[in-house]
Amino acid sequence: MSAPETIASVLIEALPYIRKFAGKIVVVKLGGSIMKDESLIARFAEDMALLRSVGVKPVVVHGGGPQIGELSAKLGKEPVFKGGMRVTDAETLDIVRMVLVGKVNRDIVAAINMHGPIAVGMSGEDGGLIEAVERNPDLGYVGDVTKINTSILDRLITENIIPVVATIGVSTEGQAYNINADLAAGAIAASLGAEKFIALTDVPGLLEDKDDESTLVRRISYEDLKKQYDANTFDGGMAPKVESCLVAVEGGVPRAHMLDGRRPRVVILELLTRLGVGTMVYSPAQPPVPPGAPIP
Amino acid sequence: MSAPETIASVLIEALPYIRKFAGKIVVVKLGGSIMKDESLIARFAEDMALLRSVGVKPVVVHGGGPQIGELSAKLGKEPVFKGGMRVTDAETLDIVRMVLVGKVNRDIVAAINMHGPIAVGMSGEDGGLIEAVERNPDLGYVGDVTKINTSILDRLITENIIPVVATIGVSTEGQAYNINADLAAGAIAASLGAEKFIALTDVPGLLEDKDDESTLVRRISYEDLKKQYDANTFDGGMAPKVESCLVAVEGGVPRAHMLDGRRPRVVILELLTRLGVGTMVYSPAQPPVPPGAPIP
Amino acid sequence: MSAPETIASVLIEALPYIRKFAGKIVVVKLGGSIMKDESLIARFAEDMALLRSVGVKPVVVHGGGPQIGELSAKLGKEPVFKGGMRVTDAETLDIVRMVLVGKVNRDIVAAINMHGPIAVGMSGEDGGLIEAVERNPDLGYVGDVTKINTSILDRLITENIIPVVATIGVSTEGQAYNINADLAAGAIAASLGAEKFIALTDVPGLLEDKDDESTLVRRISYEDLKKQYDANTFDGGMAPKVESCLVAVEGGVPRAHMLDGRRPRVVILELLTRLGVGTMVYSPAQPPVPPGAPIP
Amino acid sequence: MSAPETIASVLIEALPYIRKFAGKIVVVKLGGSIMKDESLIARFAEDMALLRSVGVKPVVVHGGGPQIGELSAKLGKEPVFKGGMRVTDAETLDIVRMVLVGKVNRDIVAAINMHGPIAVGMSGEDGGLIEAVERNPDLGYVGDVTKINTSILDRLITENIIPVVATIGVSTEGQAYNINADLAAGAIAASLGAEKFIALTDVPGLLEDKDDESTLVRRISYEDLKKQYDANTFDGGMAPKVESCLVAVEGGVPRAHMLDGRRPRVVILELLTRLGVGTMVYSPAQPPVPPGAPIP
Amino acid sequence: MSAPETIASVLIEALPYIRKFAGKIVVVKLGGSIMKDESLIARFAEDMALLRSVGVKPVVVHGGGPQIGELSAKLGKEPVFKGGMRVTDAETLDIVRMVLVGKVNRDIVAAINMHGPIAVGMSGEDGGLIEAVERNPDLGYVGDVTKINTSILDRLITENIIPVVATIGVSTEGQAYNINADLAAGAIAASLGAEKFIALTDVPGLLEDKDDESTLVRRISYEDLKKQYDANTFDGGMAPKVESCLVAVEGGVPRAHMLDGRRPRVVILELLTRLGVGTMVYSPAQPPVPPGAPIP
Amino acid sequence: MSAPETIASVLIEALPYIRKFAGKIVVVKLGGSIMKDESLIARFAEDMALLRSVGVKPVVVHGGGPQIGELSAKLGKEPVFKGGMRVTDAETLDIVRMVLVGKVNRDIVAAINMHGPIAVGMSGEDGGLIEAVERNPDLGYVGDVTKINTSILDRLITENIIPVVATIGVSTEGQAYNINADLAAGAIAASLGAEKFIALTDVPGLLEDKDDESTLVRRISYEDLKKQYDANTFDGGMAPKVESCLVAVEGGVPRAHMLDGRRPRVVILELLTRLGVGTMVYSPAQPPVPPGAPIP
Repeated sequence: MSAPETIASVLIEALPYIRKFAGKIVVVKLGGSIMKDESLIARFAEDMALLRSVGVKPVVVHGGGPQIGELSAKLGKEPVFKGGMRVTDAETLDIVRMVLVGKVNRDIVAAINMHGPIAVGMSGEDGGLIEAVERNPDLGYVGDVTKINTSILDRLITENIIPVVATIGVSTEGQAYNINADLAAGAIAASLGAEKFIALTDVPGLLEDKDDESTLVRRISYEDLKKQYDANTFDGGMAPKVESCLVAVEGGVPRAHMLDGRRPRVVILELLTRLGVGTMVYSPAQPPVPPGAPIP
Repeated sequence: MSAPETIASVLIEALPYIRKFAGKIVVVKLGGSIMKDESLIARFAEDMALLRSVGVKPVVVHGGGPQIGELSAKLGKEPVFKGGMRVTDAETLDIVRMVLVGKVNRDIVAAINMHGPIAVGMSGEDGGLIEAVERNPDLGYVGDVTKINTSILDRLITENIIPVVATIGVSTEGQAYNINADLAAGAIAASLGAEKFIALTDVPGLLEDKDDESTLVRRISYEDLKKQYDANTFDGGMAPKVESCLVAVEGGVPRAHMLDGRRPRVVILELLTRLGVGTMVYSPAQPPVPPGAPIP
Repeated sequence: MSAPETIASVLIEALPYIRKFAGKIVVVKLGGSIMKDESLIARFAEDMALLRSVGVKPVVVHGGGPQIGELSAKLGKEPVFKGGMRVTDAETLDIVRMVLVGKVNRDIVAAINMHGPIAVGMSGEDGGLIEAVERNPDLGYVGDVTKINTSILDRLITENIIPVVATIGVSTEGQAYNINADLAAGAIAASLGAEKFIALTDVPGLLEDKDDESTLVRRISYEDLKKQYDANTFDGGMAPKVESCLVAVEGGVPRAHMLDGRRPRVVILELLTRLGVGTMVYSPAQPPVPPGAPIP
Repeated sequence: MSAPETIASVLIEALPYIRKFAGKIVVVKLGGSIMKDESLIARFAEDMALLRSVGVKPVVVHGGGPQIGELSAKLGKEPVFKGGMRVTDAETLDIVRMVLVGKVNRDIVAAINMHGPIAVGMSGEDGGLIEAVERNPDLGYVGDVTKINTSILDRLITENIIPVVATIGVSTEGQAYNINADLAAGAIAASLGAEKFIALTDVPGLLEDKDDESTLVRRISYEDLKKQYDANTFDGGMAPKVESCLVAVEGGVPRAHMLDGRRPRVVILELLTRLGVGTMVYSPAQPPVPPGAPIP
Repeated sequence: MSAPETIASVLIEALPYIRKFAGKIVVVKLGGSIMKDESLIARFAEDMALLRSVGVKPVVVHGGGPQIGELSAKLGKEPVFKGGMRVTDAETLDIVRMVLVGKVNRDIVAAINMHGPIAVGMSGEDGGLIEAVERNPDLGYVGDVTKINTSILDRLITENIIPVVATIGVSTEGQAYNINADLAAGAIAASLGAEKFIALTDVPGLLEDKDDESTLVRRISYEDLKKQYDANTFDGGMAPKVESCLVAVEGGVPRAHMLDGRRPRVVILELLTRLGVGTMVYSPAQPPVPPGAPIP
Repeated sequence: MSAPETIASVLIEALPYIRKFAGKIVVVKLGGSIMKDESLIARFAEDMALLRSVGVKPVVVHGGGPQIGELSAKLGKEPVFKGGMRVTDAETLDIVRMVLVGKVNRDIVAAINMHGPIAVGMSGEDGGLIEAVERNPDLGYVGDVTKINTSILDRLITENIIPVVATIGVSTEGQAYNINADLAAGAIAASLGAEKFIALTDVPGLLEDKDDESTLVRRISYEDLKKQYDANTFDGGMAPKVESCLVAVEGGVPRAHMLDGRRPRVVILELLTRLGVGTMVYSPAQPPVPPGAPIP
């Protein structure tokens, strides 16, 4: 155990952050690769339960690309791509739903509920949560998010429940769609008026040189990141994470973060300390506080 | 269109029933075979939406045995039985969840939500809704219901949402279990203090001679039905339906019904008219009202 | 009893109307001639009780011309007319009040209260409900309505009570006045923000040829009716009914109806079916829905 | 104007009484003879308005025997008596209602509403307020009070409205009855949990020698008054007033008073000063406070 | 005891005033000289308790100049003056606080609480109630009021507690200041939206000739008083009382009064009768009501 | 700054404690000697503000013996003792009040309010908070606590205000009394249903050998401490602290602590970590949790 002085100073530093985030919504997008490691999921679940216990309102959003591929393969379903996109026929849509809603979502909910009946699983279809439209008839049931209807989330959040959302979209006529989980997560953060959006990935954050972790960008403004994004700087793995942060900040979330989900307690450290972990994207309206200034 | 006198008399008869059920909970267990017919599901969904619009609080509960068998078969998973029971290993449990939560539940929710964002899908795991314990280590993840925690259902019902529950159980430690959907449905009705429990099946109701529909039993007391059940009168298809009605009435639900889900509008007719459809099981405390007496 | 299909289709059609009118105010003006038939009053009372039981908020308004004449005659009070108007001296005013408040109002309240203590009788004097000013000193206590103070009605409606209003007016100084019941009823509907105003008369509705019931006008816009009214098309019996509908629609009530109070269940049929009964006056802002379109 | 010291001492004495009665219900029974004097009614109405303005909750109850006789006479209706009781046939009942509800009640309500829309007239029939049963078939519609249903009164009182109740009774089947106004008033006071019941009469109070006002009894316990009453000490005019006080105190009202309604401001003086006016009947549980003791 | 007619007429006159002030805030500034007479304090306390008992919301504000001088003297602290102002060093500030908060405030609170636990003592420092800034470094801890933060007062008033405020100011950094009690009292009245501000002094009111009580000014408009004040008409004792009334009326209080605190019951007489006592300062927006007109 | 792992582990340990104490009342008795060190007071004030910011409800209680002696000396007031007790005449009582309410209380309130307007000072006299009776006429205004009336504290706590209570007692007749601050603090904790009572002293806790800090007793049951206390084991400085803990635990507070107020952050460390600081007195009903067990 650490010395009392150390403990006291850590607590004295953390308490103002706890006050700051009490009652505030924090949306966390869980990346697919993180979800494959059971011990990471277990620790992540504990972090969510702890944050909730001190008044933070976490909302978890997830996709599940790798797991969809696995079940498709088992079922002998040959993936078809057009222009780099996976074509989603009715059978594929059923597989997507079964995996996201019936498997990945349940695993996350179950991990959090080890700490009490505090999480509820949802599909983006429930109560018209994630409204979507068809992107292109040639791609089948692939949709683009058009609107987030937060009323069911609002209710659960008010009741101190942690919603865990599987990113299936639904049209106003009730047709389900396979959608991009990163963008949906950023849009949910914006629509809920979240205080923070966190993309938990399997990289340390934004790297100037993607093979050199020492080139980690600690802070970047929305404008600068947008310029790089528009210039197609990012590869296929990084681009959707970057876009989800841009969508969140554009929609009014003051801060969005890309954090390394493989580091233990990374969400706790980001929320409750002055440690810089990962990359922070800040809104032009709310530039970061200089070191040493009081917490707003 | 019918004559005004006919219309007026139907309405005059129905209005007291609408008043009677306004604000009351009605739990409907949807049988697996009904769920295979899309047009039946669509009409059932419309009935739920209409009942909700006049103040009834429907709760839908479902299993999905046939659909589970289908996916298992596609995945080349050989079913194993011990003492007549399907052994549920971890892989089978994943299949059960994917089918119930990710497929059957989503189909019902989607059908109801064609009438607006009024239904929310849930697993019995959410918020510890259906608590269960392991039945027998030899059967793997097969569980028996021990307790229903209605708090999340209560919230959704209060908000005028129709909950649609997939019957997966969960232990207090968070382990999921494959459970009997009929019994879980009856137990949910009892725990919610429902006014009615309805088992929608693919038979006309309880038949004295199961090959002769003219032997339909219209009303039977809890005691009489219990005696027949204890004497093992019912075959494997009928026994769980009978047991679900017994569980519900035993738990305080005044009336339980076995109705033929293949007949159009059968739930509406049962709730809002004096027509005898299917079989009614009544509690000793609340014997049926004689014909012509005012509705209590 | 009708066939189950008939019953089901009547109910399926009626349920959306029940939803539509739940919590909405419907003001019904009872004509004097209807009130002389005890069986009509009894059935009308039952209709009000049924509508209330499914959430409609009925308000009943009545005059009582014929009954006033009867008591005057018994008391040997000679009626005096000036310019076609009955002169109302203090003694006549006492007779008007005794008949309207002490006899007609009590009879209607008593008929409704056969179904439980759900109606409360009121005079337009109570709480300054119907404010009026003297029309002409030569006519004595004859008044014109200037304002409706709905606060007491609002309270009773909120408590699920059916107010039954006798149309006596009162000045701000507390002087009572004999007023026109039809106009007062239309004004009450407008002030309460009613969803519907219904004038129950002893004719089938508006007839193009008043001696030929086949010339019934089913729908007419406010503008067209106003033009006919301004051109003095209507005789002394019809004119005040027409005017009451015009006053209601002008004051914001979307639909006003002239219905034949002698037909059984006519209010129920009008509210809960697509049957065209009597004459509907519709507001320019809310033209009638074309047949087959969904109910707004 | 009085000297400042006098004014101050009157106020200092009155303020504790105002505090004591704030929010408390005071039921006043207005005797028929008082109601014939318009200036007495006007002053009484002002007193009620003033008491209400400082938080007292007055409820006014009245009969109207003399006025019923007048209208009957005018209509040439011959009164019939059996065993000293007026036989009430249907026609007489109509006369009673017209006079009580349509005339006397309206006059009192109008007088109070000169001070703002603060009074609402009611019949004992409204909302089943005064439940009654037939006394004797030979007497026709003469009833005895069996129960008071205060729910409508409670609502009005909560809304700071002064209810003015005409004492017509009603059976559970909705049949109206002519009842004894004094007893009904005492029963209403008891059922409302009133703090005081006041019978406003045309005598100074209870007199030992009814022809000598100097023999006024200022205070008498319930037991002593009951003994005298049971011994038939009182004549036909006094007996019902005495009985109404006994009914009220028996039903839990701590103090009942017989006051001389002809004296100006007699209710104000009784409620807000230590002056002994009229006769006070006190409950055995709450004997009167000795002079000089603090007000409970 | 006075005659019943006298008593009745005093009450009839007072009741409308009681209604008028029910729920309204009345701020009373107690002058230092009044506070030295224990029997005056006791009677003042009784008046506050009585007014509270009929719904008035009194707030008491006080300084304590003479008492400060006394303790300073006892402690051998030599007063220092600069430009006519007492210099307040840290030690003096401690003396001021001890006297105002620890002695004068406690005495007033104790006197009121003789009538029940209904008063709570406060310093202007509590919850930042009286915000102040340093006037002049040469004067030490002498401050000027800049803002009143009424939130704690609002809470206590809502709970029917009489706040008793010692006029110490506090800077936003938490530094206490010695401030002018009269001005603070006027500012508190304005910030609370009081119905009346009363300065209880040891003079009869504003006198045209300060040595002749017969020259008492009964009513004066804000404008006229302001002109005289700006012309330096008033001496050192009178000027702050006048200024406190000006501050209150300027801040929206309709009436401010200078009353002679040595006269018994003077606050009761001012609030509840038409007697003119002391001097009333009225706002231009709300000129005084002419004699005989109804109370607004 | 510490390593991220250290920080994370401190936070993970502290969060459950923060949850545990959120919304709970913690009563802290500040000892007189602590109050003489301004930097200790400042740090203590910051701790109170931090705890409040994460949902803890602190209540501060204080006496002020040493400071009373100082002012008495300055005023040349000779202390008189009878049987070891200080005799409190009216003048001494005034000194006690001035010091406790006007000086010590103000200093603590001011220190906390450096962090915002979050503290309110009170005397035990306010709203009859600390009821007391005279101990012995020979001792003058020395009182014993008989009852705590928490209603004003409850209100302030509900509003997230930190009450700071000066321990003056008051009789039901309004007479103030000099009382024992330690006992009053324990009684307040018991009456408020506090989760913890903390006596901040200038010793490390309970020592077996009072001259050897290594003999600190870390945990002791109520029974054991009571036995030692009854055996007069403790000297005059320690006895009242011990008694205050006994009073609190006896009154239902599960844990009472004697902590060394000279150690920085000692309250934070006690509440939010597993560190054993000072001495814990535990109730027989709630024995301490063994190391490693989950926090209840």
